[in-house]
Amino acid sequence: MEEVVLRVLKEPKVRNPIFVEGLPGVGNVGKLAAEHLIDELKATRFAEIHSKDFPPQVFVLADGTIKLVDNALYYFRAKKKGQRDLILLTGDYQGLSSQGQYEIVDKVLTLLQKYGVHELFTLGGYGLGRMVAKPGVLGAATSTDLVKRMKRLGVQFREDEPGGGIVGASGLFLGLGKLRSMEGVCLMGETSGYLVDPKSAQAVLEILCKSLSVTLSFGSLENKAREMDRVAQQLRDLERKSGEKSGEELRYIG
Amino acid sequence: MEEVVLRVLKEPKVRNPIFVEGLPGVGNVGKLAAEHLIDELKATRFAEIHSKDFPPQVFVLADGTIKLVDNALYYFRAKKKGQRDLILLTGDYQGLSSQGQYEIVDKVLTLLQKYGVHELFTLGGYGLGRMVAKPGVLGAATSTDLVKRMKRLGVQFREDEPGGGIVGASGLFLGLGKLRSMEGVCLMGETSGYLVDPKSAQAVLEILCKSLSVTLSFGSLENKAREMDRVAQQLRDLERKSGEKSGEELRYIG
Amino acid sequence: MEEVVLRVLKEPKVRNPIFVEGLPGVGNVGKLAAEHLIDELKATRFAEIHSKDFPPQVFVLADGTIKLVDNALYYFRAKKKGQRDLILLTGDYQGLSSQGQYEIVDKVLTLLQKYGVHELFTLGGYGLGRMVAKPGVLGAATSTDLVKRMKRLGVQFREDEPGGGIVGASGLFLGLGKLRSMEGVCLMGETSGYLVDPKSAQAVLEILCKSLSVTLSFGSLENKAREMDRVAQQLRDLERKSGEKSGEELRYIG
Amino acid sequence: MEEVVLRVLKEPKVRNPIFVEGLPGVGNVGKLAAEHLIDELKATRFAEIHSKDFPPQVFVLADGTIKLVDNALYYFRAKKKGQRDLILLTGDYQGLSSQGQYEIVDKVLTLLQKYGVHELFTLGGYGLGRMVAKPGVLGAATSTDLVKRMKRLGVQFREDEPGGGIVGASGLFLGLGKLRSMEGVCLMGETSGYLVDPKSAQAVLEILCKSLSVTLSFGSLENKAREMDRVAQQLRDLERKSGEKSGEELRYIG
Repeated sequence: MEEVVLRVLKEPKVRNPIFVEGLPGVGNVGKLAAEHLIDELKATRFAEIHSKDFPPQVFVLADGTIKLVDNALYYFRAKKKGQRDLILLTGDYQGLSSQGQYEIVDKVLTLLQKYGVHELFTLGGYGLGRMVAKPGVLGAATSTDLVKRMKRLGVQFREDEPGGGIVGASGLFLGLGKLRSMEGVCLMGETSGYLVDPKSAQAVLEILCKSLSVTLSFGSLENKAREMDRVAQQLRDLERKSGEKSGEELRYIG
Repeated sequence: MEEVVLRVLKEPKVRNPIFVEGLPGVGNVGKLAAEHLIDELKATRFAEIHSKDFPPQVFVLADGTIKLVDNALYYFRAKKKGQRDLILLTGDYQGLSSQGQYEIVDKVLTLLQKYGVHELFTLGGYGLGRMVAKPGVLGAATSTDLVKRMKRLGVQFREDEPGGGIVGASGLFLGLGKLRSMEGVCLMGETSGYLVDPKSAQAVLEILCKSLSVTLSFGSLENKAREMDRVAQQLRDLERKSGEKSGEELRYIG
Repeated sequence: MEEVVLRVLKEPKVRNPIFVEGLPGVGNVGKLAAEHLIDELKATRFAEIHSKDFPPQVFVLADGTIKLVDNALYYFRAKKKGQRDLILLTGDYQGLSSQGQYEIVDKVLTLLQKYGVHELFTLGGYGLGRMVAKPGVLGAATSTDLVKRMKRLGVQFREDEPGGGIVGASGLFLGLGKLRSMEGVCLMGETSGYLVDPKSAQAVLEILCKSLSVTLSFGSLENKAREMDRVAQQLRDLERKSGEKSGEELRYIG
Repeated sequence: MEEVVLRVLKEPKVRNPIFVEGLPGVGNVGKLAAEHLIDELKATRFAEIHSKDFPPQVFVLADGTIKLVDNALYYFRAKKKGQRDLILLTGDYQGLSSQGQYEIVDKVLTLLQKYGVHELFTLGGYGLGRMVAKPGVLGAATSTDLVKRMKRLGVQFREDEPGGGIVGASGLFLGLGKLRSMEGVCLMGETSGYLVDPKSAQAVLEILCKSLSVTLSFGSLENKAREMDRVAQQLRDLERKSGEKSGEELRYIG
């Protein structure tokens, strides 16, 4: 078995497409954003990726059937002027090892090159370690021209941030893509890093949509955000109660 | 040395066989079940599998001779109407790494395909984290048709269970097999997950036997179950005594 | 670079040689024994083994020059009747991973086969977790015939020991060698497992020498044993003193 | 993707060059020294190395653009009599695994051989676990001749130091280079091992410069050293204050 198995199920009919990646990571921001984009654009699944560097795992779906963990590629054909064809990547996991990460990204880039991709967007979260009311979007890009263009769309560029660079597929697609003369932007939604963050995913998508001349409904993402707000509230309640209880216990002991 | 070395010792004479896998895992349910099936059916060992992804280890047998850790394949030829030929897999270990798991399962599937296998049963345990008096059998399958058929045999399908999917060979055989158009079912015996569980293995086998039109004696498995009951009782006694003792100690201190 | 690089520096002139392996492990028994055998027999270094699975490390020798960590092969030509030619293996490390262990042993076995080796002795330690005054030698072998022969030389075979089997090169040479129709014995010197144990190495060698019709002086090994006795005594003294001190402190506090 | 990708951007015009390596490690001594040498000599970047054994990571530069983590090779052409052409290596990371370390060093050595390199200098730090006012430079070499020559330049050679040998690229270049008949010296600047140590890097460079007949300005390195002195002073202050505070707290409690 090859390290990475890329099965093209159906040749995508795309011309000069832009690539968008969103895989699991900090706050699951990238994956949430990419999945929402795929759903709203009704993009077509055309290839799936299996890898020895994913966990040896199947998921069990609601109907009792199994699904081997994978990554998948989708395409979207431009519907109106100003839009561009898109190829989108999302999935269950990133490669487990450094080796696998390089291998998977490299293999996908080879395929993208075949389809004429020259521009990449990678989506992710930027963990702040504190709750964020209104998440901003931090950026990084392969050229100063792209940095300027992104600034005009409201993307923030802060010196020395992110301090540890960008680790994983979102960084690697830009890094290895640049070696193939591709241009790319990473959009990182600010997030606490503690919980799945649909609000941050929306912030990222709002900027991406401006750049891609795409209009999306954010209803389902807003529903998820409200759900997460409830979860966060429950956690805070639990914490407060456990605080009170331990307070009582202390009084009792005292 | 290849990653996985599959040595066929003897060509199995099988026609349209069904594959049954049971390797070490939660409660050792899968391995216990597969070994019992192999013993009772007097299945013939015909191939052994060594892998760089197994531990570099030999076992020392009772007579002082060594045995390199391995997995082995057995075959069984249908004895009466309604039965089917079988190929069975069990062994000492699963692959240690994600890479090895994929590699081993993939190599075995290639061999199975050569022998005309289209249907897979994988056996395992489903850890509940609490003692189980009468273990049920949870299922997952490659198609909704198979889900229905298994339900009729008493297999339970519960939405969102197992929550973490199926990790290891039992999941991977179904997942990678499906990519080769094989159909498959995973039967997971409920078990505490704390102890080796022959009762759970029997529950799994009772369902499997119905499906395969095979009749087994469960005497030796029931003996093992009684032995494990004694072990469990001893553990409970030990716990109770240590509880009493620490109680005494507390009184003494008090 | 290949996974394992085996450089033959000089073709060994051997006929039907017996192979002896002693690499680092429990109590360093195997390595001590193999090195002593090589020194006393004035065996000739004829091949060195480098591997990506050894640490990326050089040692600095007393004269300031470096030496890349390796394993090395030596040969000895029979000097008198009853003796056999020998090929011996020792070195700085065993492979760091399961993969490397299999790869290295497999590559060495291929070379041994070329030189006509059919019999293997692997040397190691058997950790008891307590001090051993007079270490016995535990055995395991590839055939019941060899078990019998070794018993006559004083090797002990105890059912269910070692419980965890034999892990590492000493086990793997027998296990993978058996697949190549080689016969082999593993000799394990009892040892505490806490300290380097020249006494245990001597016990192993005394049996090996009987089997190989070789006579060795054990002077240098006995010197090392006395040195280790001093180290052990110092450790006991330290422990006793620290015990007394804490006793005093307790009295002081009391 | 290959394990190690070595992209030569521009053929270096060098004759009989000496190789100098300085990668991240203890006190970052090697990397600091190599980078200073490259800056001061205005050496020309001519090749870059990417590897699946580096982290899957890009850095974000001050202008918002990204840079895939790498190692890079530079060359310097001799400017005056007594000097030699140089090839220099530095970078962001060493290989993450033993495998990768061997692979990367081996691949670079193959390239160096093509360019006619026969002599190697590897630079690193030697961690003492205590602050060092005036760092000495410890050495190791591939021959006793080189040891003698280095002693005359002030390099110290102490028996049994470093006790654990030299781990990583600095050791491996000498070890694997020696197998290719290259001669080499490792220069290790004494350092605490706690902080980045420009003073130690300067000590290493002063010796290297004598050997290479190169004159460098150390201004920028001395600036970094003063900066690190301030950092060290701040740490000591913090420690003292926290000591006082806890003292106060103790008095307060008391």
